[in-house]
Amino acid sequence: MAKDISIQVIRRLPRYYRFLRELENSGVEKISSNKLASIMSSTASQVRQDLNCFGGFGQQGYGYPVAQLRSEIGTILGLNVMHNAILLGAGNLGRAVATHLNFDTMGFRLTAIFEKDKRLIGTMLTAITVKSDDEIEEYVQNHPVDTAFLTLPRASVEAVVDKLYQLGIRNFWNFSHYDIARKYPDTIVENVHLSDSLMTLCYRINEKDINNK
Amino acid sequence: MAKDISIQVIRRLPRYYRFLRELENSGVEKISSNKLASIMSSTASQVRQDLNCFGGFGQQGYGYPVAQLRSEIGTILGLNVMHNAILLGAGNLGRAVATHLNFDTMGFRLTAIFEKDKRLIGTMLTAITVKSDDEIEEYVQNHPVDTAFLTLPRASVEAVVDKLYQLGIRNFWNFSHYDIARKYPDTIVENVHLSDSLMTLCYRINEKDINNK
Repeated sequence: MAKDISIQVIRRLPRYYRFLRELENSGVEKISSNKLASIMSSTASQVRQDLNCFGGFGQQGYGYPVAQLRSEIGTILGLNVMHNAILLGAGNLGRAVATHLNFDTMGFRLTAIFEKDKRLIGTMLTAITVKSDDEIEEYVQNHPVDTAFLTLPRASVEAVVDKLYQLGIRNFWNFSHYDIARKYPDTIVENVHLSDSLMTLCYRINEKDINNK
Repeated sequence: MAKDISIQVIRRLPRYYRFLRELENSGVEKISSNKLASIMSSTASQVRQDLNCFGGFGQQGYGYPVAQLRSEIGTILGLNVMHNAILLGAGNLGRAVATHLNFDTMGFRLTAIFEKDKRLIGTMLTAITVKSDDEIEEYVQNHPVDTAFLTLPRASVEAVVDKLYQLGIRNFWNFSHYDIARKYPDTIVENVHLSDSLMTLCYRINEKDINNK
């Protein structure tokens, strides 16, 4: 695998993957860099440059084979290597995350869900029975888990992360504003900051309104 | 307001805003660019450069006044200009979005929630009664709404967006994979692609595992 690929290119790969999967599902077999660029709201030269980072797929002038390209990008992303993950927090956000995503197509197997609220413990979420967060330690010690999805309220996150870190978990998908990597620099953290996205929307609306005046 | 600020800088502003608000809430009055850079996982020169885009806050060597900087970034983002928004989809994701975010601190007033599932119509979500999506047209025609938050299943999104566009709505916060801007280039769309974030996490975990071998 090519090394030293910039994080900017990496962050575009999931989009390529998504669009290619849609094309594949619609029965499209080949796609030109021009067409792919248009779907990606990018340029053909950007697309060619991105895909060349990984050794160049397809043949110039013949278009890219959709299924093969999708599969190779999936391999680069490592989607076929399964990581066992637990979900912390079975409130609205946890329920949304657990039900909306096909984890196994994205490299993760969701194996357990933990929650503090007694009313939710014992309920089913997808095909998993929600456990009490008192059981986290025992569970992680006895099962191979390397990743935690955090859909907890901000106030509960820090203590839970401390515990998970002590138990050896280093990979976090974090929906809270708590900055895990600052306290634990050897972790891998992807943050989802919904409020940042919303504030950016606000800015772009206002900027358009100002320019239209 | 300064013009031609790159979208990269804009996308960093919500993070500045969030961190500054936390500092302000903790009673911090001044902060140096070094300290702010460390919180932002950035460099002091990047921080100074970003803030200079907007005409330069604070005085060199004295640090930035936290409350003033937070407030000025809020003004740049337009968080004090209220936009009326409706939420489409009161399922798990819609419930999470409606309950987890303080919209009014981020420039939006959530005024109505619509849902197709009859079991959810009439239930309360935050302080809003969920309406039937049959009522969208009448509601938007009779209320000032300029933004839609879309937490609908992928299969329902396209038809709803067509309807909202015809009703004059041009701003979308979109949680589905449906590409609104491709069909309607004059819209402003912020997409939240949870799966892209998860696939990026997968890549980073595998890359670390490979490098550790």
